[in-house]
Amino acid sequence: MSGEESVLEAEGSVPTTAESGGSGAGDSIGDSPLRREDARALRGETTYTDDFGREAAALAFVRSPHAHAHVDSIDTENAAAIDGVLAVYTWEDLADGDSPMELPVSTGPLDCEVPGHPVLARDRVRYDGQPVAAVVATDRYVAADGVDAVEVAYDPLGVESDPVAATDEGAPTLFDAAPDNVAAVGELGDREETDRAFDGAERVVAVELENNRLIPSALEPRAALAEFDRTEGFTVTMSSQSPHGHRRKLSHTLGVPERQIRVISPDVGGGFGHKGHHHPGEAMAAWAARDLGTSVKWTATRSGNYREGAHGRDHRTTAELALDGDGTFRGLRVDTHAGIGGFALGGGGAMPGWYGRLLASQYEIPAVYCRSRCVFTTTAPVHSYRGAGRPEAIYVTERLVDAAADELGVDPVDLRRKNLVGADDFPHETAVGATYDSGNYEPTLDDAVDAVEGAPRGGERDDDGRLRGVGIASYVESTGGGFESGVVRVHPDGGVTVSAGTHDHGQGHGTIYAQIVAEELPVPTGEIEVVEGDTDKVPTGTGTFGSRSTVVGGNAVAESARSVFDKARRIAAAELDADPTEVEPTDSGFAVASEGAEECTFAEIAGAAYGRGLPEGLSPGLEATTFYELADTAYTFGTHAVAVAVDPETGEFDIERYVAVDDCGVRVNPQIVAGQVHGGVAQGIGQARTERATYDEDGGLAAATMLDYALPRANDLPDIEVRTQETPSHNELGVKGIGEGGTVAAPPAVVNAVVDALGVEHLDMPLTPETVRGAVEN
Amino acid sequence: MSGEESVLEAEGSVPTTAESGGSGAGDSIGDSPLRREDARALRGETTYTDDFGREAAALAFVRSPHAHAHVDSIDTENAAAIDGVLAVYTWEDLADGDSPMELPVSTGPLDCEVPGHPVLARDRVRYDGQPVAAVVATDRYVAADGVDAVEVAYDPLGVESDPVAATDEGAPTLFDAAPDNVAAVGELGDREETDRAFDGAERVVAVELENNRLIPSALEPRAALAEFDRTEGFTVTMSSQSPHGHRRKLSHTLGVPERQIRVISPDVGGGFGHKGHHHPGEAMAAWAARDLGTSVKWTATRSGNYREGAHGRDHRTTAELALDGDGTFRGLRVDTHAGIGGFALGGGGAMPGWYGRLLASQYEIPAVYCRSRCVFTTTAPVHSYRGAGRPEAIYVTERLVDAAADELGVDPVDLRRKNLVGADDFPHETAVGATYDSGNYEPTLDDAVDAVEGAPRGGERDDDGRLRGVGIASYVESTGGGFESGVVRVHPDGGVTVSAGTHDHGQGHGTIYAQIVAEELPVPTGEIEVVEGDTDKVPTGTGTFGSRSTVVGGNAVAESARSVFDKARRIAAAELDADPTEVEPTDSGFAVASEGAEECTFAEIAGAAYGRGLPEGLSPGLEATTFYELADTAYTFGTHAVAVAVDPETGEFDIERYVAVDDCGVRVNPQIVAGQVHGGVAQGIGQARTERATYDEDGGLAAATMLDYALPRANDLPDIEVRTQETPSHNELGVKGIGEGGTVAAPPAVVNAVVDALGVEHLDMPLTPETVRGAVEN
Repeated sequence: MSGEESVLEAEGSVPTTAESGGSGAGDSIGDSPLRREDARALRGETTYTDDFGREAAALAFVRSPHAHAHVDSIDTENAAAIDGVLAVYTWEDLADGDSPMELPVSTGPLDCEVPGHPVLARDRVRYDGQPVAAVVATDRYVAADGVDAVEVAYDPLGVESDPVAATDEGAPTLFDAAPDNVAAVGELGDREETDRAFDGAERVVAVELENNRLIPSALEPRAALAEFDRTEGFTVTMSSQSPHGHRRKLSHTLGVPERQIRVISPDVGGGFGHKGHHHPGEAMAAWAARDLGTSVKWTATRSGNYREGAHGRDHRTTAELALDGDGTFRGLRVDTHAGIGGFALGGGGAMPGWYGRLLASQYEIPAVYCRSRCVFTTTAPVHSYRGAGRPEAIYVTERLVDAAADELGVDPVDLRRKNLVGADDFPHETAVGATYDSGNYEPTLDDAVDAVEGAPRGGERDDDGRLRGVGIASYVESTGGGFESGVVRVHPDGGVTVSAGTHDHGQGHGTIYAQIVAEELPVPTGEIEVVEGDTDKVPTGTGTFGSRSTVVGGNAVAESARSVFDKARRIAAAELDADPTEVEPTDSGFAVASEGAEECTFAEIAGAAYGRGLPEGLSPGLEATTFYELADTAYTFGTHAVAVAVDPETGEFDIERYVAVDDCGVRVNPQIVAGQVHGGVAQGIGQARTERATYDEDGGLAAATMLDYALPRANDLPDIEVRTQETPSHNELGVKGIGEGGTVAAPPAVVNAVVDALGVEHLDMPLTPETVRGAVEN
Repeated sequence: MSGEESVLEAEGSVPTTAESGGSGAGDSIGDSPLRREDARALRGETTYTDDFGREAAALAFVRSPHAHAHVDSIDTENAAAIDGVLAVYTWEDLADGDSPMELPVSTGPLDCEVPGHPVLARDRVRYDGQPVAAVVATDRYVAADGVDAVEVAYDPLGVESDPVAATDEGAPTLFDAAPDNVAAVGELGDREETDRAFDGAERVVAVELENNRLIPSALEPRAALAEFDRTEGFTVTMSSQSPHGHRRKLSHTLGVPERQIRVISPDVGGGFGHKGHHHPGEAMAAWAARDLGTSVKWTATRSGNYREGAHGRDHRTTAELALDGDGTFRGLRVDTHAGIGGFALGGGGAMPGWYGRLLASQYEIPAVYCRSRCVFTTTAPVHSYRGAGRPEAIYVTERLVDAAADELGVDPVDLRRKNLVGADDFPHETAVGATYDSGNYEPTLDDAVDAVEGAPRGGERDDDGRLRGVGIASYVESTGGGFESGVVRVHPDGGVTVSAGTHDHGQGHGTIYAQIVAEELPVPTGEIEVVEGDTDKVPTGTGTFGSRSTVVGGNAVAESARSVFDKARRIAAAELDADPTEVEPTDSGFAVASEGAEECTFAEIAGAAYGRGLPEGLSPGLEATTFYELADTAYTFGTHAVAVAVDPETGEFDIERYVAVDDCGVRVNPQIVAGQVHGGVAQGIGQARTERATYDEDGGLAAATMLDYALPRANDLPDIEVRTQETPSHNELGVKGIGEGGTVAAPPAVVNAVVDALGVEHLDMPLTPETVRGAVEN
């Protein structure tokens, strides 16, 4: 960070107008101007969904205390009689209307026909905390009283939270359509060819591992404020990563056309994938707002958020690597049980397209076969969480490579290096049909290895008696899927409004998009505002998740800016009485290059665009809209290296060194890239050492509060050293996404280091003191 | 009107989503589906600016009781001390900041450099009611108390409200830069050639007349609710015909970039040009909102609206027509003094481009010369009012033609017919360079004349002793100036949102634009919503005035719809595995014409557009934005015929018959066209018989309330018979505007009829009983 200007003085925010000021110098692609988003947050001026609608009625849910039960009866009478309770709803009320009031079933291919998630339980609950009834009251305190007064009679059924055990005979069945609880079996790769590779292999190494179930823990819980107007339709202000995606989903659930729903997403206090998913709260609030003719707000409690909000990960995997005697990889065979919870909402990231395609990672593996079973368990539904299938895949591969090195008695770095896809082999098509756009893997491996060169390892004891270990994890990550809209609108006074269908919730889109547009147009970033988060203000959008915003949103915005540039240059040429090809951009407009004299300012060009006397063939206006889609996603990659020191007495360990070497192509704003790496690594370390959504034997979520669910704290986190390399991708900006790399690389790197320190074969995450101490003792 | 469906059941509204339902049948161009706008209004669900911001602070103005005075001192102390008064502002407060806080000077060419209209008087007031100080208080009652408590010391100066007298030597001077009060002299046509035509003419006929000053009387007075946020900038909700225009003007006055201002215009209760103009209220409210950090609302009182709001017309004209002995027109010479009030805000419609270009009307006149003097008078500023220069021009010509017929002793119809531009002479270029796109004048004249065939005239007395007269007025009207934006956005579920930069305030854009889009796309109107009135939701816009919305907005929307159609057809072709040229639209999608079998619904196409696997070369999304501008404006024309019966005892007269024959090209919705004609004729009759903004000898507006300013009432208005003809214009839809034709044709038609009944040479409007009785007596 430059340190020369204060964050509070520097920049504006997103969405911003009044404060989009900036210097205009040093704000090009590759510079790191201060984030314009930060001043508002530091001043406490950010406004989250719960800051709106202070007069709105409050919605609260009656939640099932059982993980699996028949709902025999619901008595709402006492609740409805409470002064200030406006309505108490059960499924019977919702079933009256035309609205489906069922969250849509997973878009992934399922092998069975199961119903969607009812907004209120139909006659059965399938996970602890499932909404059974809804109370709307004058305020949230009365609503809570109402919730307490609803009497529900349950008939408990059997529970099973483990996705492997859930497929056992005798396990409780969640849906008749899936008697073995398997919702879908996804296969990727050629099974027979892979089996042949294994049959002919000199060595086969196997690991069995769990990718621990995690709970996305945004600081701001989910929230929605719903309003209904007979003319305007629904307006739903909600904490969303994907306003247009939520509009589409609400359209399904409410049974009304998309044009009758406006979704506004104001400041969002963290998302991590979780806020791209559709939950009962927003649909119930909207339905109640229409029913009651008043605005209705729902803000999740923390435990409600934890119990009902979509969780992440939850894989149980057996993986095998076939090698030649010299360590050349011949085949990879993976079998995964992915717990998807009590309803099929998103496939849990287990479907082949999300997971299996990355298993080969950076390595040349001629035969890969992956089978993923999506399994219903009596738990909260699982959906994509920062990384979404990528961390699960890379964790498998990187643990397996270390296990193989151990078994073969070779240096895990050498084993990796031997099998890397070569720098000349791009675009590279993998055995399962993924096409890596560009890459240069070995230098990032070397750089990471260099960084921990000389660090004690292999269980060496240091002066404090701590066992030392070093871990390496290399990865690839597919980024930038789907399409995105980007609008660049020049106002008559030359100011610019940029909008995109992505939605910032910490990423810094306002800063980045302004840099991208300022690179294309002779306008300083301070005159460029960025607008997101309102389906009425943005043409359409996919949203922000999957490390996609800069890749697809950035390229959409850039392409629109180039269109605007071309038209502006034609107008400038007319104003300067020159041929467009002679006209070149200056700092603040256009001039005839050869003359270097008269300049036409960008504001003058904008004025002319909306005025009279435009050159023949040009229509008025100066704006462009682009819907951008990558032909193939862009594959970010890198290697992280970790050095640990394990206290064998307590099972605690310190991360002595953490070096992240990532290559996400062209970095629009290196400081923001570094911030993304820091955040991702912190979350990855959280998975590796502290977090696990544990269900107790009755099926209750044991970690339903922030006291019980162990997020990493500052003292769990090391200094994170960020190193970079830039191998451009093939899109126009040359960019790849970096939002998730840290969550992908950190878990295997940390586990590999601790495993190295302890000299064990494997340890499942999280590496709590109890787990580590147990391994030391064995 | 079909009468088969109730307005309340039928359609939605604008802007609308939830209620845009409609049958989809009989909603094509040329049909008259019920207006979707009406149900909300009839149910009382419309929301005007004053319905918002109920918690906002209230702004009220201290207004000058003098028409012309120095402001010696302003004592705000007592006002500021009132409990609930938040602030009292004078010019000194405004001058402190960076904002100009002066409404911009007329965009027409001025011959002198004069300042803009200060939002609060600088040191001098120039018309009765000019804002001198502003009070912001907790509510409007306290604000009114505050206004009463402000003490202003004035030093009165001389007043003059007549634009001819204001140019006399000795008249009080408003600005040193214009010592004779002439702000601009506009000339159009070749003076010498015209003089030669007159020199060689056998007959010259002259009239002297006044086009009476009018006050736009929208039911909803001007209003603005201003909010300021350090991040979002200004949001100004206001009663505007042109949200983007007001954003641009506010940008000037507040001195902030356009991107930092959002203008929202909700339901607007009448405009008539007036609500396209920039007034002090919205600027002062915005400035105060920022200054005080609270939302501030200003709603004009009726008298404040009348005294300070821009007025219309106010011409004093001498006009001469040169003829051959056989009645062939040889030349037209016009000299006009146009009062523009105390500040130069809009040129009063007097500038040659607005006024002189229409003087030749439907006639072949080889030489035309017009001189217009824009004159400062100590009155409210004058700006465009329904018709905006066109009624003033046609009134001159049609009075002159009748006077010439009288002098030559020929039938005024014959004299008109003899000089009409022939049906084969289009496009027709006039002597002053206007190019009429298309026309066929004689049939409309014949039709109108036929309608009053046999009506007693020429002062014939009927059985009641009433003097009977018949009047004819033919006209042309330029419509559809400037550019407009039109967006057609298809949502993934196939619903359509249309937006345009125009703004409905009674015209029925929602109904019309939906018809236009349904004509191009296989989507029923009920699935098409129309959005206007928000600078954040609409790319850009010019606004609704000058009979332009269907012409430029409609064509913009149509062009976007055609772009969407082309892309939809390509997608359909891919879905149907056919060549795009083989694919034809059906009622609800596309099918291969030759096969007539498999159909691809529009919703499926929309889904595909936002999904994966689009045909090569197509980017995702299904929407288009068009900025449409006519090469030349479209000239509507027609003839109105009136039969009157004058009571010589009372001076009252009845309009026995009113026939309007108008040709506005293709009529998208004939019922709405008829409604526009009705409204325009009513307003034109108001000018002809009751309305006049009279200033007293002290310069005070004598007609500052609705009791004193005589709007026409139901009993002043006749049954209006609407007849039509359709001569398409050259734009893609073939449409011309019809919003103002009635205000253009009615005044001369009515005056010609009364003049015919009384056998006098001329009578100035308004034809009050006093005026008529005076004429009878003479």
